[in-house]
Amino acid sequence: MRKKANHKGLFITFEGIDGCGKTTQAMLTSQYLSARGHKINLLREPGSTEVAERIRKILLAPELTLGNTCELLLYEAARAELVQREIAPLLQRGEVILCDRFYDSTTAYQGFGRKLDVRMVKQLHRVATNNIVPDLTLVFDCDLDTAMSRRKGKPDRLESQSREFFTRVRSGFLEIARKERHRVKVIDATQAADDVFAEVIKLLKRKLRLYESLHVA
Amino acid sequence: MRKKANHKGLFITFEGIDGCGKTTQAMLTSQYLSARGHKINLLREPGSTEVAERIRKILLAPELTLGNTCELLLYEAARAELVQREIAPLLQRGEVILCDRFYDSTTAYQGFGRKLDVRMVKQLHRVATNNIVPDLTLVFDCDLDTAMSRRKGKPDRLESQSREFFTRVRSGFLEIARKERHRVKVIDATQAADDVFAEVIKLLKRKLRLYESLHVA
Repeated sequence: MRKKANHKGLFITFEGIDGCGKTTQAMLTSQYLSARGHKINLLREPGSTEVAERIRKILLAPELTLGNTCELLLYEAARAELVQREIAPLLQRGEVILCDRFYDSTTAYQGFGRKLDVRMVKQLHRVATNNIVPDLTLVFDCDLDTAMSRRKGKPDRLESQSREFFTRVRSGFLEIARKERHRVKVIDATQAADDVFAEVIKLLKRKLRLYESLHVA
Repeated sequence: MRKKANHKGLFITFEGIDGCGKTTQAMLTSQYLSARGHKINLLREPGSTEVAERIRKILLAPELTLGNTCELLLYEAARAELVQREIAPLLQRGEVILCDRFYDSTTAYQGFGRKLDVRMVKQLHRVATNNIVPDLTLVFDCDLDTAMSRRKGKPDRLESQSREFFTRVRSGFLEIARKERHRVKVIDATQAADDVFAEVIKLLKRKLRLYESLHVA
């Protein structure tokens, strides 16, 4: 078990396979929290800092073939930068962070999807995050056909993987949720966006109440 | 202790602080071994594959500020790619590899130089290298003034570090050599290039005899 990070912020991560709707839900959540008077930091992985965006370009380039271990280490490198430059200082200052993907994506995609050793993958998370853990992680779960029908534009390097790969990734997210029930909540993402969002709010409420009791005068 | 890699190749790495002369010595060694009829693969770190060269650009860009952990993970990512694409298959085929820097540089620069946890750094080496260990590592040791006077051109991001940093890196290499006497040999690199090279050949002889007994008809 990891030590709970010692901060007064609120750190929520949005997870799931490509096309599950997590980006939409992160934006809806951001609007909702802004309307309640909170300043929101909406981040995405990999990226959100100059160095991490440069790493992102290598990771998503459709013309490159990356070895599995290199891919894993690049995700962790981008994460280390995001944590050090943004996430850690924001949480120290007590701010709200919504992050579109975080280390659970790496566990699901590189661990379960690429079949790398999940224990080793989790050790790397600890190196990259300096033991920072999200307060709440929402996994938007849906079947592959629904997810694929929602994707827009040309697929990037990760999106062009096989059905078998995405099936393993989906199961990976569900497995993570089973192992960390307190932190990770699964939402049925085949529903209409409004219904999904209603569940997000329901799950968010307790954490939000606690956060607001510390921060709202 | 790591398991000795099971291969019939010859893998020699050239290490030391910037300006110690290791690149010159790697080239002289390459010429020497070529003249004896061996096919030589001269590699450098970070780099030597398309992906790793793109990572190298981020690592050495003078305009970027990288967090220490991100920097470490990027070196390991480039290494993982080089090992998977080049080093592992070449050693499997019984070839000779001369590599200008390898994981000992990361131990010395990121572990000792940046003061990251050396044990954690070494764990990452195992992830990145899949437990491949050089047959012989030559550390070209010299004082900072000699090293600095030999550097050419504008310093890259790593070369612009402080004297204190390079002093820690130099001690790091010597500490590595103390801990792994069988693999890692220190050469006084303040001598003239020819004299340094004579020591290289002396240290190389035993490994080379063994290699040639397996490969030369």
